[in-house]
Amino acid sequence: MAKNTLVTLMTDFGTSDPYVAAIKGTILRLCPRAQIVDLCHEVPAHNVPMAAFILAHSAPHFPADTLHVIVVDPTVGTERRILAARIGGQFYLFPDNGVISRVVGMLPLQSLHIVRNTSFLPSPPSATFHGRDVFAPVAAQILNGLDISRLGPQPDKYTLLEVAAPVIGDDAIVGQVVYIDRFDNIVSNISAQVVSGHKVENLRVFCAGKEIGPIVRTYAAAPRHRTLALINSMGLVEVAVNQGRAAHFLGAALGDEVRITWK
Amino acid sequence: MAKNTLVTLMTDFGTSDPYVAAIKGTILRLCPRAQIVDLCHEVPAHNVPMAAFILAHSAPHFPADTLHVIVVDPTVGTERRILAARIGGQFYLFPDNGVISRVVGMLPLQSLHIVRNTSFLPSPPSATFHGRDVFAPVAAQILNGLDISRLGPQPDKYTLLEVAAPVIGDDAIVGQVVYIDRFDNIVSNISAQVVSGHKVENLRVFCAGKEIGPIVRTYAAAPRHRTLALINSMGLVEVAVNQGRAAHFLGAALGDEVRITWK
Amino acid sequence: MAKNTLVTLMTDFGTSDPYVAAIKGTILRLCPRAQIVDLCHEVPAHNVPMAAFILAHSAPHFPADTLHVIVVDPTVGTERRILAARIGGQFYLFPDNGVISRVVGMLPLQSLHIVRNTSFLPSPPSATFHGRDVFAPVAAQILNGLDISRLGPQPDKYTLLEVAAPVIGDDAIVGQVVYIDRFDNIVSNISAQVVSGHKVENLRVFCAGKEIGPIVRTYAAAPRHRTLALINSMGLVEVAVNQGRAAHFLGAALGDEVRITWK
Repeated sequence: MAKNTLVTLMTDFGTSDPYVAAIKGTILRLCPRAQIVDLCHEVPAHNVPMAAFILAHSAPHFPADTLHVIVVDPTVGTERRILAARIGGQFYLFPDNGVISRVVGMLPLQSLHIVRNTSFLPSPPSATFHGRDVFAPVAAQILNGLDISRLGPQPDKYTLLEVAAPVIGDDAIVGQVVYIDRFDNIVSNISAQVVSGHKVENLRVFCAGKEIGPIVRTYAAAPRHRTLALINSMGLVEVAVNQGRAAHFLGAALGDEVRITWK
Repeated sequence: MAKNTLVTLMTDFGTSDPYVAAIKGTILRLCPRAQIVDLCHEVPAHNVPMAAFILAHSAPHFPADTLHVIVVDPTVGTERRILAARIGGQFYLFPDNGVISRVVGMLPLQSLHIVRNTSFLPSPPSATFHGRDVFAPVAAQILNGLDISRLGPQPDKYTLLEVAAPVIGDDAIVGQVVYIDRFDNIVSNISAQVVSGHKVENLRVFCAGKEIGPIVRTYAAAPRHRTLALINSMGLVEVAVNQGRAAHFLGAALGDEVRITWK
Repeated sequence: MAKNTLVTLMTDFGTSDPYVAAIKGTILRLCPRAQIVDLCHEVPAHNVPMAAFILAHSAPHFPADTLHVIVVDPTVGTERRILAARIGGQFYLFPDNGVISRVVGMLPLQSLHIVRNTSFLPSPPSATFHGRDVFAPVAAQILNGLDISRLGPQPDKYTLLEVAAPVIGDDAIVGQVVYIDRFDNIVSNISAQVVSGHKVENLRVFCAGKEIGPIVRTYAAAPRHRTLALINSMGLVEVAVNQGRAAHFLGAALGDEVRITWK
């Protein structure tokens, strides 16, 4: 009962429809002490890989025992399962579609259960809005102290996305664009560790076929409106324009090549 | 004093201006224990019918005694009245412009008062921002335990919008598009009850002049990127495209006809 | 320990990326009792003057002792300083780039300190995301009761933006457009005080080279879809269209002239 009652919500519902509020209302109705924080509701519709990325770079910063509820669920109402997990000291409730892939790649999976015991649902769920009718009531029960092991059995396996890793060659590392943020900064899948064997000043970064230059420390290290590359706050090589829009300027898109060479 | 201090906000203010924060700050200044939840701030500007729809499909999910504050108020500063109501065990504070229409169509109206006693406003209200200067302070007083009957007298009448009902004929039900959501799902005003006299497998749905097909159970019941119709989580007939954008695909807009026929 | 734990966040991060949630998670991890309210995350990217305006018209409405954290910080990672201030009975934590200019123009600056003591940061900060790595932990310590004087010394000076004042002539007041809101209302830098020496009915307002007409009291005082001018809820002369979009209709942009003449 002394448990954390902090719960975050991540959906692809946006904030202009009644859906997110319906989920929040349901959680609060069933667990009045719940403290709800929005993780993100602007996940592109049905985009599970993007949700996996955003989740992995926000959820781990929350306190121990925080419950993260993810409703990016294009196959809602089918036989796809809902899973509850304990990962890295926090709880996650999510559809079994791979959205958890990047979190479990970073943090230890401590337990995993299929949500099968739905005896505590307040009413039979609709077929199209499990966020309100299943995820929210199950989340409320977890916040009320229910042990996730009581939700159902452990699965034999669960869905993981294929996450592209950079190719490390003798004279180049070849990765790709995995995320473009609101500032149009271009995030690659090349981590700081991968380039750590090289002197940073010897590295040259290329993105979308154009040479960006060496890796610098801050956005402001480049002249205003000029391209630069840096190790970003996620520990990944990022291509940016100081106070400008790199993806637009370079014409870069998700999946484009990011290449690093050295002298 | 042991009352609920949960308050939701619904506005057409968006989230890029200082307005919503000014309302929240004022509520918290006057009722520090207030627990504020955003219902929706992306109501299209001045669009009372849309606000009425979003409200009816989110507010009722909240706990008993929740206070819902609605500031979609194109005639702010005129003689339009502000009303406080108890409906279905919750409280609503709203301009008398019909925004409450769909909620009172679904839940019992238990009491209704004109907000006339403004003796507890912290300062004379501006003429243009009653959200901050009237709604927020009145909301804080209600959260602090003020009985809404003390706000003012009961009105003789109040504004209700004309809500279009589907026309039920001998060989067809003819409704219309009343909402299009972020996913471009098309929501009609035809409820599950209206079609409940028919075997679902005998029904054929048409929208924007095109045949959609039979009613299925889930989005994923149709092949990816194909149209479908279903009974949605609001209990309404909805036309969608599995992982696609139905309104865009069909060229459908608010007010367009949705027709259901049967064999 | 009995201090307020209310903290607001203002950023130019938008709400589609993991950044805002990473800040919130970090604050809550280090101060579980924190009560976080979004001030605004839709500040245009890198736009410090706009952030200064939004801040000044929302933050002061919050309770005494509220902590406002501002992360609109285009020169993150450079030698720009982070400052903590007590202003008008509230706390502000912000980059020394002038974002505080309009607040200190309105309210008394009570104390000001450079954030130099970073001994309590949980880990060495990244060079690119001080919102998560410096602002959030420092905010948590302030919420936990740390006196801001312990963060570092008082600065000799700090950055203030040049804020354009209207030019008051013998037969005209000439100001400019300083803000355009979601409704496309056009806000000028001409305050109610500046025009208070004149009878309102004698004033004529011009914007973007077009005559708007006299100053009225409410949006609804003009016919629907017609231009009007009024004193808005910020105490500033505003040009609007009743239930329409003034900036679009008039082709007005930030910096355009707003002129008031009189008979």
